[in-house]
Amino acid sequence: MRKPIVRNLCVLALIVLAVRTVLSGSGKPEDYRALVDKVRETGLSGERAFALLERITSVGPRLTGSPQAAAAVDLTRDLMAELGLARVHTEPVEVGHWTRGQVAEASVAASPSRAAIPLAVCALGGSVGTPERGITARVVEVRSLEEAASLGKSAEGKIVFFNRAMDRGLTDSFAAYGAAADQRVSGASAAARVGAAAVLVRSLTFRDDRNPHTGMLRYDPDAPAIPAAAIGTADADRLNALLKKGKDVSVSLRMDCRDRGKVVSANVVGEITGSELPSEIILLGGHLDSWDLGVGAHDDAAGCAAALEAVALLHDLGLRPRRTIRAVMFMDEEFGGTGGRAYAVAPQRKGERHLVAAESDRGGFVPVGLAIGSGDRKAIERVLPYADLIRPFGIWFIVPGGGGVDVAPLIANGAVPAAVLVNAQTYFDVHHSALDVVARVAPRELELQAVVLAILAYILAEEGV
Amino acid sequence: MRKPIVRNLCVLALIVLAVRTVLSGSGKPEDYRALVDKVRETGLSGERAFALLERITSVGPRLTGSPQAAAAVDLTRDLMAELGLARVHTEPVEVGHWTRGQVAEASVAASPSRAAIPLAVCALGGSVGTPERGITARVVEVRSLEEAASLGKSAEGKIVFFNRAMDRGLTDSFAAYGAAADQRVSGASAAARVGAAAVLVRSLTFRDDRNPHTGMLRYDPDAPAIPAAAIGTADADRLNALLKKGKDVSVSLRMDCRDRGKVVSANVVGEITGSELPSEIILLGGHLDSWDLGVGAHDDAAGCAAALEAVALLHDLGLRPRRTIRAVMFMDEEFGGTGGRAYAVAPQRKGERHLVAAESDRGGFVPVGLAIGSGDRKAIERVLPYADLIRPFGIWFIVPGGGGVDVAPLIANGAVPAAVLVNAQTYFDVHHSALDVVARVAPRELELQAVVLAILAYILAEEGV
Repeated sequence: MRKPIVRNLCVLALIVLAVRTVLSGSGKPEDYRALVDKVRETGLSGERAFALLERITSVGPRLTGSPQAAAAVDLTRDLMAELGLARVHTEPVEVGHWTRGQVAEASVAASPSRAAIPLAVCALGGSVGTPERGITARVVEVRSLEEAASLGKSAEGKIVFFNRAMDRGLTDSFAAYGAAADQRVSGASAAARVGAAAVLVRSLTFRDDRNPHTGMLRYDPDAPAIPAAAIGTADADRLNALLKKGKDVSVSLRMDCRDRGKVVSANVVGEITGSELPSEIILLGGHLDSWDLGVGAHDDAAGCAAALEAVALLHDLGLRPRRTIRAVMFMDEEFGGTGGRAYAVAPQRKGERHLVAAESDRGGFVPVGLAIGSGDRKAIERVLPYADLIRPFGIWFIVPGGGGVDVAPLIANGAVPAAVLVNAQTYFDVHHSALDVVARVAPRELELQAVVLAILAYILAEEGV
Repeated sequence: MRKPIVRNLCVLALIVLAVRTVLSGSGKPEDYRALVDKVRETGLSGERAFALLERITSVGPRLTGSPQAAAAVDLTRDLMAELGLARVHTEPVEVGHWTRGQVAEASVAASPSRAAIPLAVCALGGSVGTPERGITARVVEVRSLEEAASLGKSAEGKIVFFNRAMDRGLTDSFAAYGAAADQRVSGASAAARVGAAAVLVRSLTFRDDRNPHTGMLRYDPDAPAIPAAAIGTADADRLNALLKKGKDVSVSLRMDCRDRGKVVSANVVGEITGSELPSEIILLGGHLDSWDLGVGAHDDAAGCAAALEAVALLHDLGLRPRRTIRAVMFMDEEFGGTGGRAYAVAPQRKGERHLVAAESDRGGFVPVGLAIGSGDRKAIERVLPYADLIRPFGIWFIVPGGGGVDVAPLIANGAVPAAVLVNAQTYFDVHHSALDVVARVAPRELELQAVVLAILAYILAEEGV
């Protein structure tokens, strides 16, 4: 936390600037230059975004519906008040409560010529458990949902092993993730439809290691719910090598994860209320919930911290833009976005208009670009005159895009999507795994992300879009 | 290492392409698209650049003149041969041999009201040691060389404490480093000129921790050589706080570092010899030597690995460009570049013309831009038509620049400087400190850097500049 005396000096120093810029809303890029310098100097002077991330992760992993997620709600509400945000409150969300349990074991069954080989696995989020004695079955490997479907009767009673790797040749790591994630989301039901007993899914990462990467699966109503586990990439390669030898390979899988029904959780909301158009909102969002193998430092304590720090920075500088800049910490992104849907229809939304919805959920990395609006480039044209102001922070391109699970309902209602794009080359090294810990976040990179977000939000709140 | 069978397939697959592109040299960007795709797919398919970095760092820290630096020379020569480079050889360099010794201790002396406070320090590279009993003296804090000079007689017998921090408000970390490094390089002599007994220099990093960051100092011939130590930033702040209380603060400093005269070391050279203009050279360089607190993973095993991998990738694909692409692993960048100067005047240079000299010495991070040529932008204009080919790798800008200690003599002789610019926001977190270890390098980011370097080198070797 910055010291109050420094904050007061900043406020004093900026009064003239604030009055001039905020009330005029002239729209000229040069009117924002002093503001950008001040946000840069104040933001980069310390590592507060990282301190916020440390606070959020201090409760531990924040699996939707868990006591830790509830603790994160309380803590974040207090944090917003401490940072001086206005109208701080929570809004209830009914969420699922799935627990991983104590057991997630798998091994290649011993054969006359070979001892059993343990496999690094974890339950996929939402998976049913196995019977207590586990499931032991022969393994059949596939590369796609289509290939699983084509197995027909030959899959009956087997464990289907989805082993299509993320395409390392793609320079866009999100594209590589997107092209492989269907196995994790829909593999269980695709295999269940042809009678499989369980599925193993290759972890979604570029790395060759023994860290399984979890993530949500979706059971289709027309197929039995069968157990589904992620398997570390090194172990996936080992299993593949055994299968290539042509022998029958059986795997035993045992997991005691299970669904525990519904609980009430919450989104956490705070803002700088707009001075002229308070009901027009520029939303900066992140999600409070996380997976439970690490502590969700990049995914998405970092996004929460960046959004909080962006709003707090503007507040510290005594700025009050024309429109409202609101930080929303959504609950339950990881299990499909109940928090985002609840926010969009909450009674508090009455009379509000969300102009922009910016979700920060790409990891706490250094900014490299901006995404805003749709392919018609209208929003881009609106922002482009200010591009020179943010280029020194590493923002070299502005493309259509943005959005995210939590803000999708707002965008469907007409809000313009936006996001600070970051260098995500190593995001999937840690994503949804035990490696997603505080030590993997670089404080300065996170702060740069927050600073860019603050500048973007302020300009949009002044100028509209 | 990639498997030979894969390599052979690549070679076969590329024969048509290679013949077409290499011999025509048409210069059209689209002629290089298939090559770029192949380099991307082959390079990003694995983590060979990182494996090379692991090999280089396996000998340990490679302080100029040390047995480990000698081992790195042998290992790198073997590595080049193993990778299939042509004309692999070493070229002798006479270098200094300074040793850190076993002792680097400092503490704020105890006072009647306070116990002694240990300070995290390390000797600056090249520093003389203290007498065996150490130096104990009152501390005077300054922020600049000028302020040290202005102390006059009041500095006599004291320890001058240079405490100007890197400016966190600058978005360019190299600029922040450059603006603070004079204290480390020239502080000792500036203080000695006004009679100081020793200097402490604030470590050059944005982080607030207890890791001292070493680096070269330069003793001016007109001033006595006095001991010089770097002090961790947290301890620098503590010392500053004590001095602010207004009381006399004495520090004891003891170091047994010393100069051990000259030894003969070597640069290591290998290449893909040009098919048409073998004496025209595109040089890719890194430096083999490192500081000794970590293992010099980012600085500069990463640069060596990127240059080696770039050349090896082109070799694996069976490419033979018109001009020579040469990898040079320079010895002794850190103590001032004797290796670079030796290379420039070696007998082997007779008849050679270095068109481009690209040094990789900015850390093993993700590429973000290219630097090439001088302010007249001639070299940039030459490369600009190919910008679309490298943009997918994150290269969003091309600016004048490049160069480095090792290639400065070549550039003085007319070679065009060039460099892949990287995201160096966290470089100075680890630079010259115990934190510069293998675990801090992200394999995929290093591989992306090598791939961009390979593409750049190949286009320049085909097209000239």
